[in-house]
Amino acid sequence: MRAVVFEDYQTFPALTDVEAPEPGPGEVLLKVAGAGACHSDVSVYHTFEKGSPGAQKPPFVLGHENSGWVERVGTGVSERIKIGAAYLVYGPIGCQHCRQCVQGKDTYCENAATMPYQAVGLGRDGGMAEYVTVLAHHLVPLGDADPVSAAPLADAGLTPYHAIKRALPHLQGGGRYALAIGLGGLGQIGVQILRALTGATIIATDLRADAREQAEANGAVTVPDGDDQVEQILEKTHGRGIDAAFDFVGAGSTIATAAGAMAQGGALSVVGIGSGTHEFSFFTNPYESYVTNTYWGTVSELWEVVDMYRAGQIRPQVERYGMEQALEAYRRLEAGEVNGRAVVVPGQG
Amino acid sequence: MRAVVFEDYQTFPALTDVEAPEPGPGEVLLKVAGAGACHSDVSVYHTFEKGSPGAQKPPFVLGHENSGWVERVGTGVSERIKIGAAYLVYGPIGCQHCRQCVQGKDTYCENAATMPYQAVGLGRDGGMAEYVTVLAHHLVPLGDADPVSAAPLADAGLTPYHAIKRALPHLQGGGRYALAIGLGGLGQIGVQILRALTGATIIATDLRADAREQAEANGAVTVPDGDDQVEQILEKTHGRGIDAAFDFVGAGSTIATAAGAMAQGGALSVVGIGSGTHEFSFFTNPYESYVTNTYWGTVSELWEVVDMYRAGQIRPQVERYGMEQALEAYRRLEAGEVNGRAVVVPGQG
Amino acid sequence: MRAVVFEDYQTFPALTDVEAPEPGPGEVLLKVAGAGACHSDVSVYHTFEKGSPGAQKPPFVLGHENSGWVERVGTGVSERIKIGAAYLVYGPIGCQHCRQCVQGKDTYCENAATMPYQAVGLGRDGGMAEYVTVLAHHLVPLGDADPVSAAPLADAGLTPYHAIKRALPHLQGGGRYALAIGLGGLGQIGVQILRALTGATIIATDLRADAREQAEANGAVTVPDGDDQVEQILEKTHGRGIDAAFDFVGAGSTIATAAGAMAQGGALSVVGIGSGTHEFSFFTNPYESYVTNTYWGTVSELWEVVDMYRAGQIRPQVERYGMEQALEAYRRLEAGEVNGRAVVVPGQG
Amino acid sequence: MRAVVFEDYQTFPALTDVEAPEPGPGEVLLKVAGAGACHSDVSVYHTFEKGSPGAQKPPFVLGHENSGWVERVGTGVSERIKIGAAYLVYGPIGCQHCRQCVQGKDTYCENAATMPYQAVGLGRDGGMAEYVTVLAHHLVPLGDADPVSAAPLADAGLTPYHAIKRALPHLQGGGRYALAIGLGGLGQIGVQILRALTGATIIATDLRADAREQAEANGAVTVPDGDDQVEQILEKTHGRGIDAAFDFVGAGSTIATAAGAMAQGGALSVVGIGSGTHEFSFFTNPYESYVTNTYWGTVSELWEVVDMYRAGQIRPQVERYGMEQALEAYRRLEAGEVNGRAVVVPGQG
Repeated sequence: MRAVVFEDYQTFPALTDVEAPEPGPGEVLLKVAGAGACHSDVSVYHTFEKGSPGAQKPPFVLGHENSGWVERVGTGVSERIKIGAAYLVYGPIGCQHCRQCVQGKDTYCENAATMPYQAVGLGRDGGMAEYVTVLAHHLVPLGDADPVSAAPLADAGLTPYHAIKRALPHLQGGGRYALAIGLGGLGQIGVQILRALTGATIIATDLRADAREQAEANGAVTVPDGDDQVEQILEKTHGRGIDAAFDFVGAGSTIATAAGAMAQGGALSVVGIGSGTHEFSFFTNPYESYVTNTYWGTVSELWEVVDMYRAGQIRPQVERYGMEQALEAYRRLEAGEVNGRAVVVPGQG
Repeated sequence: MRAVVFEDYQTFPALTDVEAPEPGPGEVLLKVAGAGACHSDVSVYHTFEKGSPGAQKPPFVLGHENSGWVERVGTGVSERIKIGAAYLVYGPIGCQHCRQCVQGKDTYCENAATMPYQAVGLGRDGGMAEYVTVLAHHLVPLGDADPVSAAPLADAGLTPYHAIKRALPHLQGGGRYALAIGLGGLGQIGVQILRALTGATIIATDLRADAREQAEANGAVTVPDGDDQVEQILEKTHGRGIDAAFDFVGAGSTIATAAGAMAQGGALSVVGIGSGTHEFSFFTNPYESYVTNTYWGTVSELWEVVDMYRAGQIRPQVERYGMEQALEAYRRLEAGEVNGRAVVVPGQG
Repeated sequence: MRAVVFEDYQTFPALTDVEAPEPGPGEVLLKVAGAGACHSDVSVYHTFEKGSPGAQKPPFVLGHENSGWVERVGTGVSERIKIGAAYLVYGPIGCQHCRQCVQGKDTYCENAATMPYQAVGLGRDGGMAEYVTVLAHHLVPLGDADPVSAAPLADAGLTPYHAIKRALPHLQGGGRYALAIGLGGLGQIGVQILRALTGATIIATDLRADAREQAEANGAVTVPDGDDQVEQILEKTHGRGIDAAFDFVGAGSTIATAAGAMAQGGALSVVGIGSGTHEFSFFTNPYESYVTNTYWGTVSELWEVVDMYRAGQIRPQVERYGMEQALEAYRRLEAGEVNGRAVVVPGQG
Repeated sequence: MRAVVFEDYQTFPALTDVEAPEPGPGEVLLKVAGAGACHSDVSVYHTFEKGSPGAQKPPFVLGHENSGWVERVGTGVSERIKIGAAYLVYGPIGCQHCRQCVQGKDTYCENAATMPYQAVGLGRDGGMAEYVTVLAHHLVPLGDADPVSAAPLADAGLTPYHAIKRALPHLQGGGRYALAIGLGGLGQIGVQILRALTGATIIATDLRADAREQAEANGAVTVPDGDDQVEQILEKTHGRGIDAAFDFVGAGSTIATAAGAMAQGGALSVVGIGSGTHEFSFFTNPYESYVTNTYWGTVSELWEVVDMYRAGQIRPQVERYGMEQALEAYRRLEAGEVNGRAVVVPGQG
């Protein structure tokens, strides 16, 4: 079958032929409907060297945002998994036997250090191919919803959903303020989730005017970049400050902006891996506010992301590429030319 | 000054002249902007006998949903309270010295049984008059928002807000379902609050078609009355059941409807005082779901209700009556002829 | 191999020879260390008729409180499961593909109605035998802790732990009161868990004086049975009432006692299946208190129960029986002659 | 009356005669039973210059940890406050009219910047005198408990209680680990509170061996100071890391130790004002763990601290000084010679 393969560190992936996989015990063979191209793939094949934190050993098929139809099941898979039905795939794969994995929190697997791979498409063959094998209990049923648009939800939907859900207690009630920094794929869906799940005033910012416009269409008020950004944000909160901030960039400057605008008791979640740092001091930290980091999400949260997708509360913006255009998708992604999320659709022309 | 006075049990109130009050230490004299007429007033003057639970000793001025402008302050009142500024009044008054009152939870005062009154306008002179005295720390600033429309928020806004805020953990996340039964003053504001603060599908019901239509305009889906109401509700939840239900009626039949539609882990809050009962059984109760009752709300919650009002998330529907039409307001309320909430506006013609 | 088999409804089980099982994909063959005899087994073989709610179709090997050593693994089982190591077994088995099961909450499986069995030893062969097969991800490592005493924790430990953990927010802080009714296997461990995890004053009651004495040794204060039991409980709370009650009996009289002693905002969890009922009324229910039911627990909670067992915070009291004495264990259980929990130990004499 | 007066910045206080105060509206005149001498007093009179953050304008009577008997009440004080009865005094005083103060959270008053003082004994006359005036609703009844030992609870009890109560969700359940750094007045009471309210293994550390011994007597396991302190802590958590840490010192080195030992999702609360800082980085921060700061506590929490004191769960260690020995108490405090807390007892010799 055709597949996009990460063949070596710091090497652009190849579109090539590989053998179709077979599902093992407890696994399912999925005919891929869509596979999202994500910036972290670029880190995998372009940035990381062997031994870098986060580096995954080549070769393997890329694609960690996957949806598809069940083609065949391995041994030990329940009859509840229906041949031909459409599913979204939970990507992370932990050891399945620790106190995190038994709750479907593979992201925080206690034995992650000993696992040979991190996720479907990250160390283990992913969905940028005609077929992919996945764990049966990591499938989330899509019903009659479009599986192609759904693909990016596996990461670009689940990651902001997890960060936001964890912070919801900070946003419960009237008169709350949320901040979203970085309005790319995750950020736009983040704004949609905040709009749907909370009554907070959502303040959003990005360097690009068109990204800010899209966030406004999704229900945010926006502030432009600039020296007085913190003051502008505080003004929109009438001096209260931000109850929950989500930094989808994670650079030093974005963390500083968010940290400078926090309210007492506020929570700043750094989601983007921009290598920024932040210095805590008793005297400058608004009491009981804090900075933390979150990573991807849980299986049961992915069920809830699909609920929101089916209810029209999350509306991913996607560009579709055929299998033979898959490398073009990555090229455009690197060039910053993708609008929303690029999804490779093997079944498309 | 002119005032609506509850003069004796089971006696329609009188519009009469009484002496204007003076603010004591820690109190404020408020020039009334608006005073809402509430069904519980009807219980006070019409239903209760001396000694009934909930009965308040006459005579006193009615009106427990009050807003107004500060006219004068008593001793010991901080300069933060501004003469001439508009405030909404928190109604309940507890002992001020128990572990509930020190948190602004006067509703659950541990010494309620020893208090000579329950609230402003319930045992103590209320706001159906030109002036009223209130505790300074029970005032919530309205800024430049309309104080007349705000008046009903003191009860018809705060009561559903409290019940909903308490139940928010049940509604956090995608794929949740809320139920509102009884779409009068409290119910309609309840639907608005649920719409603003949660992503839940809101299912609403009432005997009156026009009330259901209004709820739909506020963002609910509705089901009519009828024998298969529980089935219709469950169908709209795709079989999951209700995560949080709010019964603004509290009759046996409405509690039964809500209880019959609960999901595992769901919370049914009975807010309406309809004297209904419900039988718990281990075998029929969806696991970890429950029925409970809530009463009015807290001072800090009233600040949040005002936040939502000022943000346009709560939009009370009011009919305005001049002081001389105040009794007419009660007559129409008893006759079920009031649309939304009747507010007496002493300063109006 | 020797096994205790439930052969037909309303028929005392048989000690007989059955074929040793083979582990399927994702399963593990366990050499049984201990299997607890539970009152619900008596319901299975003695009380239930075909078609009763809770009835499980015979024949199958009894035993849903199991521990043992891994003898052999099926296909698709990770190398983290160590041959020869000791594990405790999570009993409930759901569909593995719904939003409850993916969190390890098999007890609340959304597809429970379509499952051919409820748990290991309840519809599917259990641990009252030399060997048993279980799902690999339902094993909790015991390390060097005694696996025989551990066996009852699978139900008699997990069930109170789940109910208590869920109610912990009601018990957080100084000046809280807990109530435990019914001081058998679950109740005594319940008192131990409350003592370890909360600062609450624990009030406990049982008809039997020796059970009350044991609860006192575990850190409770007790009240005897009697007409003024509610008053005695309230007195011990200095009039506050109970913040969290656990009824391990579930009879009408015990629910009434607990309900009569609740504080505002208190939670009464009915754990025992005593068929009692309770009538909610707005006017008699302490505000925001409630009655609910809970059932068994989750996989990750069983990890925490083992943590408490290994730390000496839970100390099950067991009587050991050899395989050939297994039926004697059930006979003594029916006669009320077992002290603590009867555990069948196949490897013993 | 005799009083310990802070007369000027960077000047040792004077024991002198001042006029006895009169209670204003809503205030109470308290005959002082005990007033604790706290390290922050030393900052007030010794360290701060005019204009320093935290500096309070002289002159005023010191003492922010006070207990006493009601001598006289001002106007507008309820009859629930009993002449002659013993009370503990909540110290912080906010504006009484913001959304924090109406919940009894004066510490986080939204208008703190405009207040002329911070607390009783911090900018406003305190309890190091024969009499002190306080707000009536800031009194917590002590019943028949010893008011002298109770005095330090107003700060040395309430501050750790607030930090711990806020972090309790991190410590709920089996297998949790808490860390306490700095075993002086607050730290020892912190260990007692953790012991009473949680089942966590409490790991404690301090430079002084006798302080560690006392913490062990209070139920902690301890680690000494040293280069491998983080490793020793992690070893005691069996590699899990700390779920909730409390740094009662707040120096750079203590924050670094705690931060280096945190578990995923853990919370590090810096309580001590040691001027330390900590750098957050996405790559080194255990996922979803965080560092924050907390300050003193709330009125309702002080009620709960008194509950724990009366139940014997908090046992302050005090040294008593007569009024004329008050300055000696401060001298010994500065010299590090006080065992536990120095309490000035005006009624003593």
